[in-house]
Amino acid sequence: MAEAAMAAAVHPANAEPDRIGHFLELFADRLDANRAKIAETAHEETALPLETRLAQIEFGRMLGQLRAAASAARDVSPNSWRTPLIDTDSGIRSDFGPLGGAVLTIGPNNFPLAFHAVSGGDFAAAIAAGNPVIAKGHPLHPETGLLLARCAAEAVTEAGLHPATVQYFHQCDPEDGLRLVVDSRIAAVGFTGSRAAGLSIKAAADASGTPSFLEMSSVNPVFVLPSALAERGAQIGGEWAASLLMGAGQFCTKPGIAVMVGKGGDAFLEAATSALRAAAPGVLFSVDGVERLACGIDAVEAAGAVLRCGGASGSPGSRFEPTLLEVDGDDFLKSFEDLSQELFGPVGLVVRAADLNEASSLAARFGGQLTATMFTGSDDDAAWMALEPILRVKCGRLIENKMPTGVAVVPSMVHGGPYPATGHPGFTAVGLPTSVRRFAMARCWDGVASERLPAWLQ
Amino acid sequence: MAEAAMAAAVHPANAEPDRIGHFLELFADRLDANRAKIAETAHEETALPLETRLAQIEFGRMLGQLRAAASAARDVSPNSWRTPLIDTDSGIRSDFGPLGGAVLTIGPNNFPLAFHAVSGGDFAAAIAAGNPVIAKGHPLHPETGLLLARCAAEAVTEAGLHPATVQYFHQCDPEDGLRLVVDSRIAAVGFTGSRAAGLSIKAAADASGTPSFLEMSSVNPVFVLPSALAERGAQIGGEWAASLLMGAGQFCTKPGIAVMVGKGGDAFLEAATSALRAAAPGVLFSVDGVERLACGIDAVEAAGAVLRCGGASGSPGSRFEPTLLEVDGDDFLKSFEDLSQELFGPVGLVVRAADLNEASSLAARFGGQLTATMFTGSDDDAAWMALEPILRVKCGRLIENKMPTGVAVVPSMVHGGPYPATGHPGFTAVGLPTSVRRFAMARCWDGVASERLPAWLQ
Repeated sequence: MAEAAMAAAVHPANAEPDRIGHFLELFADRLDANRAKIAETAHEETALPLETRLAQIEFGRMLGQLRAAASAARDVSPNSWRTPLIDTDSGIRSDFGPLGGAVLTIGPNNFPLAFHAVSGGDFAAAIAAGNPVIAKGHPLHPETGLLLARCAAEAVTEAGLHPATVQYFHQCDPEDGLRLVVDSRIAAVGFTGSRAAGLSIKAAADASGTPSFLEMSSVNPVFVLPSALAERGAQIGGEWAASLLMGAGQFCTKPGIAVMVGKGGDAFLEAATSALRAAAPGVLFSVDGVERLACGIDAVEAAGAVLRCGGASGSPGSRFEPTLLEVDGDDFLKSFEDLSQELFGPVGLVVRAADLNEASSLAARFGGQLTATMFTGSDDDAAWMALEPILRVKCGRLIENKMPTGVAVVPSMVHGGPYPATGHPGFTAVGLPTSVRRFAMARCWDGVASERLPAWLQ
Repeated sequence: MAEAAMAAAVHPANAEPDRIGHFLELFADRLDANRAKIAETAHEETALPLETRLAQIEFGRMLGQLRAAASAARDVSPNSWRTPLIDTDSGIRSDFGPLGGAVLTIGPNNFPLAFHAVSGGDFAAAIAAGNPVIAKGHPLHPETGLLLARCAAEAVTEAGLHPATVQYFHQCDPEDGLRLVVDSRIAAVGFTGSRAAGLSIKAAADASGTPSFLEMSSVNPVFVLPSALAERGAQIGGEWAASLLMGAGQFCTKPGIAVMVGKGGDAFLEAATSALRAAAPGVLFSVDGVERLACGIDAVEAAGAVLRCGGASGSPGSRFEPTLLEVDGDDFLKSFEDLSQELFGPVGLVVRAADLNEASSLAARFGGQLTATMFTGSDDDAAWMALEPILRVKCGRLIENKMPTGVAVVPSMVHGGPYPATGHPGFTAVGLPTSVRRFAMARCWDGVASERLPAWLQ
């Protein structure tokens, strides 16, 4: 696969921005023409709701990303991801361009379309930058992946790109996967998934000098500041519970930990608990996932958290009860590592911080996150100002008065954050054209004759 | 040091672009006021020529970079490194900002001013992004570093930044240095130096999830294409020798390997050899450097290269004779690892490639480089087109008909390249404002009240 990808990387047709843009549009059109079958298959394989989640929201997002990537691929303007610069005095020109090898994309279980290795955000960004892609789909939705990959292959042919521009597989031993990661013909890796898998990929990529962009894990802390807690505690508690339940809690932006700052969190807690009690068990992607979740909850309880509702798997199949745990701020700080772990499912932990000082200590303990959120009330300006400098540098997206689930696909979105949320604080996995820059290299031409330059640098 | 830097990172004054810009200008002014003393000290410690190299060229470059960084720090326009984006429909805004911890800069031996850890390119870029810096100067020019650091400290005070915005040292055990690299309060590392030191820093930084930007090593291959060789062989040979001798061959862009493509390289070789024979021994930075160079030359000879001139150390002090080695293309390919090593000093290797095919195989074997150069003649278009796709993705800067020494400080410069030349193909160590992005994180504000936002996002 790597050898074939190298042939694609140097193929002249693959250096044409218009052709790449055309491929991405043809691919989106083909996917759209097969929408019913693909969405149905993804629904069967993942148990995610067909309407509107898969067939409308996620499908639309996947198509929108591919079409936005087509625009990005074609864009050679000064403000594009290519940022062409021409210094006529010195004869030195620069831009960003493809990496000269394959981008290996490794997709997650939780977005079988919009984050799929062969049709999702990493794929779109890597192709827009002019790279061939070797895509590894998630083995929990194999048929979906094959349908997507088939559309891609047809679009590659129709657009006239090298046939190895897109290669696909979804099954391999972890060792074979890591062997591919370190292959010198793999120019970069894009990954979305668990922290354990991400860290093993990162270690391999680091050792071979391969840039990797990993979206690994995040508990997305939500701080409910004192005034907000007093003024709208019940409302925010309900919103939090609803956000926990989205996608059965299997979102990377699930607000897994809510920190109530100051006294008076009972209304928040009651509203959240009753909403979770009233909800049906969530269907997880796999029986393994149920086991890992149960284990995680055991560890959190062992570390001092108290179970308020749920806590058990449901039936039939891989279901899990909506679950709420609670712990005091000082206990949370004492057993931070155990209590701050990501619990991938419909599970949340409420932390009672005695005051703003404790909340600040707590905020400072968190590692890198995709998001951090503060709910503010009429008298929370000082609390915001105390926490903001701490939280701002811990997360890619800082949110006020809104739950973090739901990642808008707009250019100003940052779906990234410092390690260990991702592998690099300077990038985003969502938000074209910025996301393209992960898979691009800085190129300079010095004294090169005009006719040898890309058109946008002449 | 790390704790003090964290206090600086969250200090309100350090979040003011104008104040940071003011500091950088004050610093440049103070350096300029002490130019004679600083340049003289650097000359005594490094043996690099005082005029014009240190007092004019490198000093001017250092000041120019700091002043360009001041402009970059102040720039909040849409085209700045901050790239502020405002999406009013969704209420989502983004920019790039400081990392929330210290940037550790580690400076090299070969540019005591313009690449110094406390006054050079990495320093300027890290400060412009709003980060505090912990600078480790090179122990071979300690007094120079202290003079530079003192000017920085005075400018910090005068500008009203947090006193720990710039911290400096130049001596530590390697283990203590690595302990600092992995400290969670170190947000990124910038390094210029040897491959061995760079790789040990990279391994430590990778394991702790710290982004590192390393400029490590490069042999900067120069390909002399058939027509150029026939038409201007002697002239190019002379230019190559002159480029090898610059800074006693201790430049990161020294063209260490020249590949003659096709028959008829005798004129090139004769001109280069006689120029090197006529030149005085170069003064290296240390006796260790002389020993390492002699070892490297032994290894290259043992691997099959023939010594054409030089090869021995000179006296007095740490001198080394200008040295030329030669090898056939097929032997070069057979013993590639030994023969392609960087020889840090006035030493070059000529490779005789039998034809364009062999030159292509050879080009494909090289790892990432800072630069790659092709000298072209009247009939070399086909040869350029055969080699360009291979070389383009191996280097940051692709050059035609010019030696790579001399790195113009312009925005379109890329002083970077794929691993192992550097640690990441998407960045440059020279060329403001692009170089700032290494030390910046992608930040997003979602639904945050306008008055809480940075001015440029309101």
